[in-house]
Amino acid sequence: MKLAVIGLGLIGGSMAKDLRKAGFANEIIGVDVSPENAEEALHLGIIDRIETLEYAVSEADMVIIAIPVDKVLNSLTKVLDLVSDQTTVIDVGSTKKLISNAVENHSKRRNYIPAHPMSGTENSGPSAAMEGLFEGKINIICDQEKCGPQHLAFAEKMFQVLGMDIAYMTADDQDHSTAFISHLPHAAAFALANAVLDKEDREIIFDLASGGFNSTVRLAKSSPEMWGPIFQQNKEYVVESLEVYIKHLKAFRKSIESDPEEMMSLMKNANRIRGILAGQNDSLVKNAKTIVKLYTK
Amino acid sequence: MKLAVIGLGLIGGSMAKDLRKAGFANEIIGVDVSPENAEEALHLGIIDRIETLEYAVSEADMVIIAIPVDKVLNSLTKVLDLVSDQTTVIDVGSTKKLISNAVENHSKRRNYIPAHPMSGTENSGPSAAMEGLFEGKINIICDQEKCGPQHLAFAEKMFQVLGMDIAYMTADDQDHSTAFISHLPHAAAFALANAVLDKEDREIIFDLASGGFNSTVRLAKSSPEMWGPIFQQNKEYVVESLEVYIKHLKAFRKSIESDPEEMMSLMKNANRIRGILAGQNDSLVKNAKTIVKLYTK
Repeated sequence: MKLAVIGLGLIGGSMAKDLRKAGFANEIIGVDVSPENAEEALHLGIIDRIETLEYAVSEADMVIIAIPVDKVLNSLTKVLDLVSDQTTVIDVGSTKKLISNAVENHSKRRNYIPAHPMSGTENSGPSAAMEGLFEGKINIICDQEKCGPQHLAFAEKMFQVLGMDIAYMTADDQDHSTAFISHLPHAAAFALANAVLDKEDREIIFDLASGGFNSTVRLAKSSPEMWGPIFQQNKEYVVESLEVYIKHLKAFRKSIESDPEEMMSLMKNANRIRGILAGQNDSLVKNAKTIVKLYTK
Repeated sequence: MKLAVIGLGLIGGSMAKDLRKAGFANEIIGVDVSPENAEEALHLGIIDRIETLEYAVSEADMVIIAIPVDKVLNSLTKVLDLVSDQTTVIDVGSTKKLISNAVENHSKRRNYIPAHPMSGTENSGPSAAMEGLFEGKINIICDQEKCGPQHLAFAEKMFQVLGMDIAYMTADDQDHSTAFISHLPHAAAFALANAVLDKEDREIIFDLASGGFNSTVRLAKSSPEMWGPIFQQNKEYVVESLEVYIKHLKAFRKSIESDPEEMMSLMKNANRIRGILAGQNDSLVKNAKTIVKLYTK
């Protein structure tokens, strides 16, 4: 199987590594706007050769688009224009509504699978790519009824090869849930880093930062070039999530100021997240079938 | 050396483990209000025997108080009343001003070292205790000029045995910096967990939570019994830190809504945290001498 990967960063590079290792792809063609990134990916053995987008997609069986979401918006129509009827096209960005709406009426809409593998790190570029990044994680596929069955099956197979379970939902539901579960934590981390940088000098941060601080601001190291377009494309839900969050922060601040009993009960409520996240290890629920049941509308 | 540890949870238990392993303490007496915790610590080999507080502190060379900060406030005077002139008393809670003020005029004030080892996890109890928890981390000692030199030296030696560097500052500075670097991230995590629990059902959180979400809400699993008293004792600075944070969140939300250029520049500013935290690994700066220079007033 000939795979074209557009965007050779953390996500595209990690997918390429696993798909080659599993023997799912036996030829991997790389496309990147940055010649340095492309060379690095070639040098690291992530791809077999570098091609232009036009050439790469015209001969591929599967095209994975793993670039910032504003760039997906520009490239997806072009890719669908160029591919054969047999080629499956998957974009793996964090926002789905605007992008899938943009190709709603494209003659090759059924070749396109809007997906969102829920995995990542705060690092970027080909050198950040790693094996096993997606193992045991969830991939979201949106509006599957709009996808051609053979393309859907091929994409599902690919995500299963990566070790992922699949959740099916509408693009709108995905953008809403992802706003709260992924985009909000990133926005919160950026603002937390700015708040601490505002008040404390760098030597104190440097010396005193403990495990708790490090894990909470880890996401503040993330790439603005990747996250800016996500916040813009999902503006409505991200702003909603920030409003809900600010409401809860204010309630917590108020309870510290004047209602210790309420403060304790807010913390106890937050503690429920432990049980919910611990459930993630429950293998009984972690299979595509159950998740299909939960989300298919 | 005979060590009494009051409070056999994560911090007290982990200190006991390392101090025994290093041969710094050859007899460790445990005190805990919970008979179950005390039994568990004995069973785990963390302590040699269980005693009442009165008996334990009267015969110890060093007393470490590792209990919630509201309980420290109640116990410290009692401990200082009971110890000999030669006994060094250290409390390792996260807030220092209220506690050290409470014993300001005690006849054994010079036996007492107000300390704050900056390390922890979201888990609690004797079973959460682990070796090496403090290695390479910073311990804060407050108002060292109020400590007797022999007691200060004994405490410094103990923290160095744990592998910690030492930062010296006033109790007021420690409470302010710790509000931003430790208490704020915890408050932010509690509120983030509540915001997500408010908007998303548990199946969606459970399925979609990715590494970013997990690391950001990890602290929301922390014990309310430990954190409630910290937020109360450091109310003024924690509320200030929450106000600064909410201000930055609102600025970020506004930039997403209407000023993408400002949004990019806020994220780039937040990215500076990467370089600052990376500096933590710079061994040249990680020695007590340098830190003394930075903080001694």
